[in-house]
Amino acid sequence: MIQKFIETRAFSKLLCEPLQTEDFVIQPVEFVSPTKWHLAHTSWFFEVFILTKHKKDYQLYNKDFPFLFNSYYETKGERVMRANRGNMSRPTVGDIFQYRTHVTKAMKELLETSKDKELLDLVHIGIHHEKQHQELLLMDIKYCFGHNPLFPVYNPDFDEKTNEDFEQKWFRVKEGLYKIGHDTNEFSYDNESGAHKVFLENFEISNRLVTNGEFLEFIENDGYKDPLLWHADAWDWIQNEKIEHPLYWQKTKEGWEEYHLTGLEYLDPSHVLSHISYYEAFAFAQWKGCRLPTESEWEIAQEQFSWGKRWEWTESAYLPYPNYQKASGALGEYNGKFMVNQKVLRGGSALTSNKHTRKTYRNFFHPHMRWQQSGLRLAK
Amino acid sequence: MIQKFIETRAFSKLLCEPLQTEDFVIQPVEFVSPTKWHLAHTSWFFEVFILTKHKKDYQLYNKDFPFLFNSYYETKGERVMRANRGNMSRPTVGDIFQYRTHVTKAMKELLETSKDKELLDLVHIGIHHEKQHQELLLMDIKYCFGHNPLFPVYNPDFDEKTNEDFEQKWFRVKEGLYKIGHDTNEFSYDNESGAHKVFLENFEISNRLVTNGEFLEFIENDGYKDPLLWHADAWDWIQNEKIEHPLYWQKTKEGWEEYHLTGLEYLDPSHVLSHISYYEAFAFAQWKGCRLPTESEWEIAQEQFSWGKRWEWTESAYLPYPNYQKASGALGEYNGKFMVNQKVLRGGSALTSNKHTRKTYRNFFHPHMRWQQSGLRLAK
Amino acid sequence: MIQKFIETRAFSKLLCEPLQTEDFVIQPVEFVSPTKWHLAHTSWFFEVFILTKHKKDYQLYNKDFPFLFNSYYETKGERVMRANRGNMSRPTVGDIFQYRTHVTKAMKELLETSKDKELLDLVHIGIHHEKQHQELLLMDIKYCFGHNPLFPVYNPDFDEKTNEDFEQKWFRVKEGLYKIGHDTNEFSYDNESGAHKVFLENFEISNRLVTNGEFLEFIENDGYKDPLLWHADAWDWIQNEKIEHPLYWQKTKEGWEEYHLTGLEYLDPSHVLSHISYYEAFAFAQWKGCRLPTESEWEIAQEQFSWGKRWEWTESAYLPYPNYQKASGALGEYNGKFMVNQKVLRGGSALTSNKHTRKTYRNFFHPHMRWQQSGLRLAK
Amino acid sequence: MIQKFIETRAFSKLLCEPLQTEDFVIQPVEFVSPTKWHLAHTSWFFEVFILTKHKKDYQLYNKDFPFLFNSYYETKGERVMRANRGNMSRPTVGDIFQYRTHVTKAMKELLETSKDKELLDLVHIGIHHEKQHQELLLMDIKYCFGHNPLFPVYNPDFDEKTNEDFEQKWFRVKEGLYKIGHDTNEFSYDNESGAHKVFLENFEISNRLVTNGEFLEFIENDGYKDPLLWHADAWDWIQNEKIEHPLYWQKTKEGWEEYHLTGLEYLDPSHVLSHISYYEAFAFAQWKGCRLPTESEWEIAQEQFSWGKRWEWTESAYLPYPNYQKASGALGEYNGKFMVNQKVLRGGSALTSNKHTRKTYRNFFHPHMRWQQSGLRLAK
Ligand SMILES: [Fe+3]
Ligand SMILES: [Fe+3]
Ligand SMILES: [Fe+3]
Ligand SMILES: [Fe+3]
Repeated sequence: MIQKFIETRAFSKLLCEPLQTEDFVIQPVEFVSPTKWHLAHTSWFFEVFILTKHKKDYQLYNKDFPFLFNSYYETKGERVMRANRGNMSRPTVGDIFQYRTHVTKAMKELLETSKDKELLDLVHIGIHHEKQHQELLLMDIKYCFGHNPLFPVYNPDFDEKTNEDFEQKWFRVKEGLYKIGHDTNEFSYDNESGAHKVFLENFEISNRLVTNGEFLEFIENDGYKDPLLWHADAWDWIQNEKIEHPLYWQKTKEGWEEYHLTGLEYLDPSHVLSHISYYEAFAFAQWKGCRLPTESEWEIAQEQFSWGKRWEWTESAYLPYPNYQKASGALGEYNGKFMVNQKVLRGGSALTSNKHTRKTYRNFFHPHMRWQQSGLRLAK
Repeated sequence: MIQKFIETRAFSKLLCEPLQTEDFVIQPVEFVSPTKWHLAHTSWFFEVFILTKHKKDYQLYNKDFPFLFNSYYETKGERVMRANRGNMSRPTVGDIFQYRTHVTKAMKELLETSKDKELLDLVHIGIHHEKQHQELLLMDIKYCFGHNPLFPVYNPDFDEKTNEDFEQKWFRVKEGLYKIGHDTNEFSYDNESGAHKVFLENFEISNRLVTNGEFLEFIENDGYKDPLLWHADAWDWIQNEKIEHPLYWQKTKEGWEEYHLTGLEYLDPSHVLSHISYYEAFAFAQWKGCRLPTESEWEIAQEQFSWGKRWEWTESAYLPYPNYQKASGALGEYNGKFMVNQKVLRGGSALTSNKHTRKTYRNFFHPHMRWQQSGLRLAK
Repeated sequence: MIQKFIETRAFSKLLCEPLQTEDFVIQPVEFVSPTKWHLAHTSWFFEVFILTKHKKDYQLYNKDFPFLFNSYYETKGERVMRANRGNMSRPTVGDIFQYRTHVTKAMKELLETSKDKELLDLVHIGIHHEKQHQELLLMDIKYCFGHNPLFPVYNPDFDEKTNEDFEQKWFRVKEGLYKIGHDTNEFSYDNESGAHKVFLENFEISNRLVTNGEFLEFIENDGYKDPLLWHADAWDWIQNEKIEHPLYWQKTKEGWEEYHLTGLEYLDPSHVLSHISYYEAFAFAQWKGCRLPTESEWEIAQEQFSWGKRWEWTESAYLPYPNYQKASGALGEYNGKFMVNQKVLRGGSALTSNKHTRKTYRNFFHPHMRWQQSGLRLAK
Repeated sequence: MIQKFIETRAFSKLLCEPLQTEDFVIQPVEFVSPTKWHLAHTSWFFEVFILTKHKKDYQLYNKDFPFLFNSYYETKGERVMRANRGNMSRPTVGDIFQYRTHVTKAMKELLETSKDKELLDLVHIGIHHEKQHQELLLMDIKYCFGHNPLFPVYNPDFDEKTNEDFEQKWFRVKEGLYKIGHDTNEFSYDNESGAHKVFLENFEISNRLVTNGEFLEFIENDGYKDPLLWHADAWDWIQNEKIEHPLYWQKTKEGWEEYHLTGLEYLDPSHVLSHISYYEAFAFAQWKGCRLPTESEWEIAQEQFSWGKRWEWTESAYLPYPNYQKASGALGEYNGKFMVNQKVLRGGSALTSNKHTRKTYRNFFHPHMRWQQSGLRLAK
């Protein structure tokens, strides 16, 4: 456990190595957080949920930090408005790395002495929370760099691109009662627990993800201009935001280009499609005469195909499983309070941290969001 | 069929009898439409989907009306922006009643001569469409009057209030495979067709709706102030909109009052709760240690209790049933394009038109909406 | 005085004769008020500033009306938010005409018995206030009809169009000390009193107003596309609002058209330009290598030319004259509180009520406003 | 001239010495620019207006920089939206200092070889432009730090505070013809040139600026709550923005505090008032039964008192002087295009760079702005 904790803490730092000090600070839109905020907030989580309760005589590193680095825990007191995270140049990046060191050290001391079950459960959550923020950190850096007119390279070795240009096949699943949800002893979040039966109709699911080339065809066939393909809310969104292509695509005189963490490159039609909203995934499926799988279908069928390259939008709304109970107290805010207006994504992506996904993992975003590395798989 | 058609048309007119000319015109918020718009739009529906196609030599009553009275059919051409419906004093109320007469007459002529199946199906939809707008018309009138500082009476005889002050009991349903969805020959919308099996866990559902008195307790126990009871999106909503009570309640020096179509009255704790959002329904259930039923649970259990007094929020997102296919062409926009970001309500309400609901009927609204007459029933 | 009062009251009613009931109700944008609001508000002014103070035992016609029909007098208590004036279908138009009759009658009784100087001064203000609202009423009706897709005719006999197609000449005024401001015994507003000396440089001013034809040339020479012609705030405004021509112009397949109170007509290049903002007036003058006159220049030069056909934008900001003192109490809110961010217009227009302008009259609007009948005269 | 140029460039750098890298990056609100943007933009000015035209074979340092660092010159091509200046972490602070070095070196070379009059005029403007941005840089840093919950110290030796606690006296100026505006050979901006005569009435002006203590009295006497003291636009502003005190004041349990570049301190009533809007200045003067001076009055009277401690709001709108002509081409955008909707301030402040003010200098801001170090002097 200590090992896992230390590795996770170290990996966050590793992700920051390609960055300049300036890159840690900015917040170009409200849903993106500054890198230094992620670094501080993941430390705050250990400090406020574990150290202040379980470590004798623990002193807060800085009495202002809980206010600065609380994310959304209403029950944990006042906090800086989300939109203001990028307005603070202080504490500096250096200050925050010191804060991390302080917290890591205190946690190590604590973990060396206590084997308390409740404590270890919280540490598990803290580690997974940090892994989650590692993915967010990469998403946010990509957003910052991908919207900078200079299109800086994050890391020339961080290759997110992936091919799925083998022939499309359809796996058939027969109708029947199936069981989904997490039921092993491994770590899982509360939202995926409560394994339960579901009845599924006959369905077919594709063996591969949709590619850039296929989506290009959709664009060239005026997919973004046919209202019959889109939800009403989606149509409003593409009109208001002038959406005409996936997030990191741009059309220049030389043709289509796509921004990656390795820099700006010509769009490769054989690569797997990335960074689309649920709305776009749905419209594409509609245009293909197919649909998106539900999360139950995906979970039942997932052994048939390889996954983990893109977060795959499903048709399922993010809802509590039967008999779901929110954890009591502040940690109850972790998952349950987002169970409305969001869609489930399954799988994982090239930005996802090691071991931070599994077949029962339920990721979720509002349907217009696309700064996560999302793609789609067709079903029918 | 002609009879049904004529009755429906006549009933729309009847609903307007208590109104002054001025009342037909206003649109205090975007989601409310002027009464005269409803009257014209329901006629436009018959004109554009039926008369122009099925009636020989039919001439549009007025070539500008399709532009003025299209609601959201992107495929039916340009239209007045929804928010501008209340900015048009012309055509006058008189003009619109003439338009109605013109359309009704032409439809009668058509129905007397043709028994074409496709035509009759469209007429059915047109009739049900108009019934739907009859409920919207009442919702909108109530909104207009309930937000006018003078709180005008719509109709002293239109009593929406209802008691459910009998003892609460819990009906138990055993886990198992059940079948839901519409499968008779009666009229239904496409969104409820496709009867299919669902697996339900054991659950219990209340024999009665929540009352004003119960909700008052929630308020007095600071239910609106405890973030742990609310979804994240809900908490933002109640902060931004300063929500502290159901839509038509107000607290004065003399105590709580509620606006009804019969006028402003003291709040009666024994009456059934009305005009709450899904967010409020969820928070109340959370506070009670219960939850909302899913739409499947509701449909399976509904024979056990009486319903139809309030639209009952369910925990279910409004999603397509398995094998759902949008109708082709413009009518495909009727239901399918709303199947994201909305919640299902079941039952019916005091504002619902005669025969415009059934046990499989799926009503839907965005979760913050509450100008429909919505209430809630607990499950666990 | 009684005569003047009665005539003014009657004229407001006369202006409403061409209207349908529906036309009295709507408020398509915040700065436009419903006709029925103008009718009620001008009565409220007499009621609250005169009758309640000077008429023995006067009873308010309706205790809610002061709340409903106060415009902006913060000191006169709470009021309906400006943007909500069009959301109220009640009181009806009939109710408001009764209110007017009640107030007119009470005022007549009062004026027949009292000759109190302070009272008569207030009545004067009340009469001029109503004349001001008569112009606003016409501006607002024009806005409602001119934005209705049906472009209804207000009154086929109400001709606002006017030619100034005689040859342009420049009147020269020599530099020197001049006196401006009101100094007779006639009625004037507080903002024009305080006659005072100003030093003017040599200047020239045009004998005529700019015509549609001249402005068309500006458009055709891409005047709306050259940032060097525009103020920074103006450039933002034309970008955000997509401004490309004067308010009531539209370009159709058949060419330019202009809406008048007599209906939609082809644009006549020889007619005087109307309904432009200060920003457009300034850009046009810039493009011509000229400028707008200051209000002092206009006042000194006005005997040289005929005026009163259009409100003429000046380069002057609306500021207090030397030694200006706000009236005490609520009437102090009449003019003084608007003396920032607005520009002075001089002259009068085809919508201005009889005797409601004079050479010292200072009209004022924010620089982007153009629903008043504004034009421009060049200076250099 | 070279000397002046080099000193100015060096001073910009000196101002940055107390800063951490992170401090150069952020833009908490649209009207504040990041420090690194100021550093780059002032170099861009020399590059684009001088080097590319006057230096043979000059190569742009980076072809993207004109796009990144243009401020508002529409005629100089596309530019980053103002609100996005803080969204760019690259180019880094280091890159920008290199850019500065490159430009400074090229300019020095140019100045050593050319004495062209047109060139020197442009250099003068460039130097003064940079001085202007030095003040903006300090205003912006103060805004960033003064809105950071940690209230960092910029520089413990940068003391902006100043006393004017001597007895108030009123200087009288007799009515008559006076001359204002710039007419020496020294550098001045185009907006202050065109010396011209103005007629002034008798007036009196205070020998000192208003103090914190006096303004505190205004607050304690509910000055922010009396609508009769405020302009209509001002009243909307204080309601919407919840304005209750000057910008850098805050009330804590321990009393009133004020943020300075030296850190957070208790409010000193004897210090000169800072960081108020025109609206607040006007309301205060109104409350005192006085008024603000016009810019002409200020300029005529200024020899009687010491000034330069605070920018002093005047009652004058920022308008062109008689016979004002915009410079041709892009530099014509420098001043003229702001001559609407703004108020003139005279004097200077503790943040103003050396020699960057004079008695004829016309500073200007929109009336609600208060991040400049503004105060007020009464007149009557
Ligand atoms: Fe977190
Ligand atoms: Fe409809
Ligand atoms: Fe008025
Ligand atoms: Fe600049």
